Amino acid sequence: MSPIDLRSDNTAAAEPYVLEALAGVSTGTAASYGDDEVTTRLGRRVSEVFEREAFVFPVVSGTAANALGLSALCPPWGAVVCHEGAHILVNEAMATSMFSGGAAVLGLSGEGSRLTTAVLASFFERTAWGDPHSSQPAVLSLTQATEMGEVYAPSEIASLGELAHSRGVRMHLDGARFANALAALGCTPADLTWRAGVDVLSLGATKNGTMTADAIVTFDPDVAAELRYRLKRAGHVASKGRFQAAQLEAYLRDGHWLASAGRANAALQRLLAGLAQLGFAPVVPARANLAFVAVPDEVSARWAAAGVQFYVISPGVVRFVTSWATTDAEIDEALRRCRR
Amino acid sequence: MSPIDLRSDNTAAAEPYVLEALAGVSTGTAASYGDDEVTTRLGRRVSEVFEREAFVFPVVSGTAANALGLSALCPPWGAVVCHEGAHILVNEAMATSMFSGGAAVLGLSGEGSRLTTAVLASFFERTAWGDPHSSQPAVLSLTQATEMGEVYAPSEIASLGELAHSRGVRMHLDGARFANALAALGCTPADLTWRAGVDVLSLGATKNGTMTADAIVTFDPDVAAELRYRLKRAGHVASKGRFQAAQLEAYLRDGHWLASAGRANAALQRLLAGLAQLGFAPVVPARANLAFVAVPDEVSARWAAAGVQFYVISPGVVRFVTSWATTDAEIDEALRRCRR
Amino acid sequence: MSPIDLRSDNTAAAEPYVLEALAGVSTGTAASYGDDEVTTRLGRRVSEVFEREAFVFPVVSGTAANALGLSALCPPWGAVVCHEGAHILVNEAMATSMFSGGAAVLGLSGEGSRLTTAVLASFFERTAWGDPHSSQPAVLSLTQATEMGEVYAPSEIASLGELAHSRGVRMHLDGARFANALAALGCTPADLTWRAGVDVLSLGATKNGTMTADAIVTFDPDVAAELRYRLKRAGHVASKGRFQAAQLEAYLRDGHWLASAGRANAALQRLLAGLAQLGFAPVVPARANLAFVAVPDEVSARWAAAGVQFYVISPGVVRFVTSWATTDAEIDEALRRCRR
Amino acid sequence: MSPIDLRSDNTAAAEPYVLEALAGVSTGTAASYGDDEVTTRLGRRVSEVFEREAFVFPVVSGTAANALGLSALCPPWGAVVCHEGAHILVNEAMATSMFSGGAAVLGLSGEGSRLTTAVLASFFERTAWGDPHSSQPAVLSLTQATEMGEVYAPSEIASLGELAHSRGVRMHLDGARFANALAALGCTPADLTWRAGVDVLSLGATKNGTMTADAIVTFDPDVAAELRYRLKRAGHVASKGRFQAAQLEAYLRDGHWLASAGRANAALQRLLAGLAQLGFAPVVPARANLAFVAVPDEVSARWAAAGVQFYVISPGVVRFVTSWATTDAEIDEALRRCRR
Repeated sequence: MSPIDLRSDNTAAAEPYVLEALAGVSTGTAASYGDDEVTTRLGRRVSEVFEREAFVFPVVSGTAANALGLSALCPPWGAVVCHEGAHILVNEAMATSMFSGGAAVLGLSGEGSRLTTAVLASFFERTAWGDPHSSQPAVLSLTQATEMGEVYAPSEIASLGELAHSRGVRMHLDGARFANALAALGCTPADLTWRAGVDVLSLGATKNGTMTADAIVTFDPDVAAELRYRLKRAGHVASKGRFQAAQLEAYLRDGHWLASAGRANAALQRLLAGLAQLGFAPVVPARANLAFVAVPDEVSARWAAAGVQFYVISPGVVRFVTSWATTDAEIDEALRRCRR
Repeated sequence: MSPIDLRSDNTAAAEPYVLEALAGVSTGTAASYGDDEVTTRLGRRVSEVFEREAFVFPVVSGTAANALGLSALCPPWGAVVCHEGAHILVNEAMATSMFSGGAAVLGLSGEGSRLTTAVLASFFERTAWGDPHSSQPAVLSLTQATEMGEVYAPSEIASLGELAHSRGVRMHLDGARFANALAALGCTPADLTWRAGVDVLSLGATKNGTMTADAIVTFDPDVAAELRYRLKRAGHVASKGRFQAAQLEAYLRDGHWLASAGRANAALQRLLAGLAQLGFAPVVPARANLAFVAVPDEVSARWAAAGVQFYVISPGVVRFVTSWATTDAEIDEALRRCRR
Repeated sequence: MSPIDLRSDNTAAAEPYVLEALAGVSTGTAASYGDDEVTTRLGRRVSEVFEREAFVFPVVSGTAANALGLSALCPPWGAVVCHEGAHILVNEAMATSMFSGGAAVLGLSGEGSRLTTAVLASFFERTAWGDPHSSQPAVLSLTQATEMGEVYAPSEIASLGELAHSRGVRMHLDGARFANALAALGCTPADLTWRAGVDVLSLGATKNGTMTADAIVTFDPDVAAELRYRLKRAGHVASKGRFQAAQLEAYLRDGHWLASAGRANAALQRLLAGLAQLGFAPVVPARANLAFVAVPDEVSARWAAAGVQFYVISPGVVRFVTSWATTDAEIDEALRRCRR
Repeated sequence: MSPIDLRSDNTAAAEPYVLEALAGVSTGTAASYGDDEVTTRLGRRVSEVFEREAFVFPVVSGTAANALGLSALCPPWGAVVCHEGAHILVNEAMATSMFSGGAAVLGLSGEGSRLTTAVLASFFERTAWGDPHSSQPAVLSLTQATEMGEVYAPSEIASLGELAHSRGVRMHLDGARFANALAALGCTPADLTWRAGVDVLSLGATKNGTMTADAIVTFDPDVAAELRYRLKRAGHVASKGRFQAAQLEAYLRDGHWLASAGRANAALQRLLAGLAQLGFAPVVPARANLAFVAVPDEVSARWAAAGVQFYVISPGVVRFVTSWATTDAEIDEALRRCRR
């Protein structure tokens, strides 16, 4: 009985089209360090997908995308404001502090895993604006979908963005599961980003199909100009750039990214529907491809023993994550094991 | 008439076995962030290749390998000592200064593109050891093969290493073309590294066949312990680590790396032999896969116009680089074009 | 009616003996950058006062003392653990993150303004030790006396230190009001520092009498060796070092520091006794020279209008601070104004 | 026979008026962290002295003034360009790299100890503008008077500034001996700074009379806004700011600074005149208060033995420095000893 892996979308393999894309560009010679045609094509593709001029920087991890993107928005004496459960605060070893030259990352309590304008307004109220003894809020970072699987509607992002920009605070989206949010909300990439005030996006390709490529996307030419330097000196410019660009180009082509995310989301919903029948519900509404579910420890231990893999986040709470590769059969088998 | 690309080994495609390796591991689920079996196997492979326990850290670029490796050897108030033409000083945007927290990178004039014990001893003589007003030499970084295609014999590295260690200075090898040096010298990886006193090596896989994977190799468990943290917060730990590890595992398997490097070296020697007949010689002895050749500007302009691609480094000096993919036919055609 | 300034011990002038000390050393020439006799004498003085070999580094501010001292104890990927109200977290603009190369500063909720072993043990329990995705606790920083005027008994520091050291975590004391704690507790400098496991102390001279001189004191020769470099490159080595050393030497001579602190403490207690008669009490036990007192906003507004200066910390809570210069007459006059 | 100290202007005591100024402000209470009246007055004084709105930031050392001032002009990926003998490159432990987040400090060979427009133009010619692999020149830093006692005329600074600004490069003046340059040139502070294109100046008070106070002066409000944050998090904002400001206010009052510098310059010229009679001459024209003089080692050893203190910079070259406190009698006695 092989285990059903619902630990993370990071454990999934890569989409087959990614391998094809790599094979497709591994021929002849090409200019190095991103001056190649594949990278140029990727730039065009991103601008099409986002319906305006956009700048894209391939990197090797979501942490790099977040920390480098944030470092271009936040001065060393600034603060990045985020939810207290945000990946950038809890799981990235303070990469953002390092790349920014010592900026603070401040976690706020939100509702569930999301920030609200009320929470942000109250924080801004408490902020000692202009006081050099206090880190100055410079960026609001939202995670979309959130670390618990919730999503922000475009209008919610826009409201948060408006509030942030009114204080000169820029907006960053940790899109580790951006495609999943898009698929869940059924809106356009533009709606969820620049139209709602997002300045910099971590694209989040790796969890959703690519092998070694994630990306920073920005709509601000000044930020883009700065990122060229920041990426190089962070060692995040691959010498054979076409192999990073090719993965991302394929990802954004032919609707691949949305199809993959849609499958992952559907698998999660199938799982939740089954768990609901068993009497288990998510602790916050899960709209994308992961859920935090309230399950007594003795029950979850039984599930684990039956070969269902997931993380116990805290006593009585487990996390399930599906991926582009999760099949209906796997979900059904997982539920069968849970039911026993 | 298609151009013959002798600009850089960075312009070459990836070796076919790399694609096969990626396909081979893109199946099922695997633990993320390097806790997977492929990464574990890579660790064993590296230890075998180097004939002792070694620690390997995949990264996405040679700059990352150099700068992160050096940051684990050099305190913020230290200095990395290298040849004045070293890539880490001239072409990496001071990544080493950033990752180390502000260390100095000091370039010394050597003989040709190599440092000698005489040059190093003289520098140590001038150093204000223990003076807090002066950056303290902490690492000697050699490039092997050098930026101009010369190589250090094992005994030369050992002498430099002995001198360095006698002052508490560690030794780093920028092995951007390490396999080419190995192939040229016909010695073992161990001979060129830890047996000669090297503490940290940038493996240099990308120029020689992989797609997006280079690596740091160290023989010091304390350095390895530190690098685990340094890499994560630099965003250089790929979430789907197996795809980085697989490229490197394949690279070091079945003699691939040495075979690729051997082909590149042979192509360069074939080119040099042809150029010698035309009366053109390298400015320093070129043993690996690149050479700086003295060529009058009007001549090199003619070659370029004839479809031979290379870099003009300075007036009267051009650089040729061959790769694993360079064929005899290409070299012969290039020489034919030069002869016209 | 001139105001009675109870805002901060930072608003007080310098002790007259400091001026005398400066005059005393401003004669003839002296070696620069701390190689002078006055600095040497200061080193001896500090070792006497702390009853063992100690190393002292004059700096120009408490923030410099804290951040530089902590940077020598905490690797870039480490975390400094402190009370959530600690000055290093709330009021120093993340200087500690900058000087450490991006370390985290993590605030814990304690009892009142103090940390307890229970709180620390629980935090250690939750820590992902050895996980590179998580900042690794490296230093415990306590404030003595605390930001709200509480003190830690030597045995309490020792217990916290024992727990910290058991996990390889070093201990730092922000002694912004160290002399006040000493005076309040009636114990020796050794009892409150190295005997209780403290590795590095911010001495806290400025609030208590000096003009421009504070200091880092450490008992660890390795930390001291590192600090020599860290201070120079932070611009914290005064070229005419004798003028920094002279202030500190005088501070620690003839019991000046304890006498000054004793006067400040006594003034605060006199104030609290008077306020108690009016029905106002500190929100946590105030043992040193400052107190947070619960006072309805309309009452505190009246006091302020009457010429008593203090800070309103939050609705219903005001802070009073006394200094070496606060007189009984001032306290009595302040109480008179409050009583009206 | 007491030694005549001609080692450095850093070895001199403080001017008596500095002590008086400190005594004058050490009374009553004052707002902390630079919000006091003395600091406000200093700001006005600086604006008067420089004949336009200027912003002043007291710091405790010239290294702090240089490194923090430069960090506000230079992005992390930038380069500070200076003479190869510049203090910021050779004697400040790469403080500039640390505070800037890893910027390069690039030394150019000039004529004597000065840079020329020809040297700078040639460097700009070689620069890979816009290439992210190369640190981008962002600041030109000149030392005035230079490390060897030469001075730049206002027109020379203006020419260098014009060239720099034409490439978007800002200009910084390390004014460790700015007053000496002013006194030597007989021009106004405005002529030597903003009128010639200087954006940021390190004022250089400590060597010329103050105790613990140097300062950054800038004419750019944006730089000033940034420095407020940078100084605080560097620990360079003294809590009792009036004691730093008072030294500088007195320094710039009643012509004190120019009188002190004039005395130091005159003492040096008296020394050089005497040495000329003995057949010894400076290696470059010395206009301020220090000179590098060619003296055979056996001769300088005799002088040292006779109780004249100076530094041997390199074989056959010694450095003499005079200060505000150097007397004619000392110079005459030094010459007498040299003559023996």
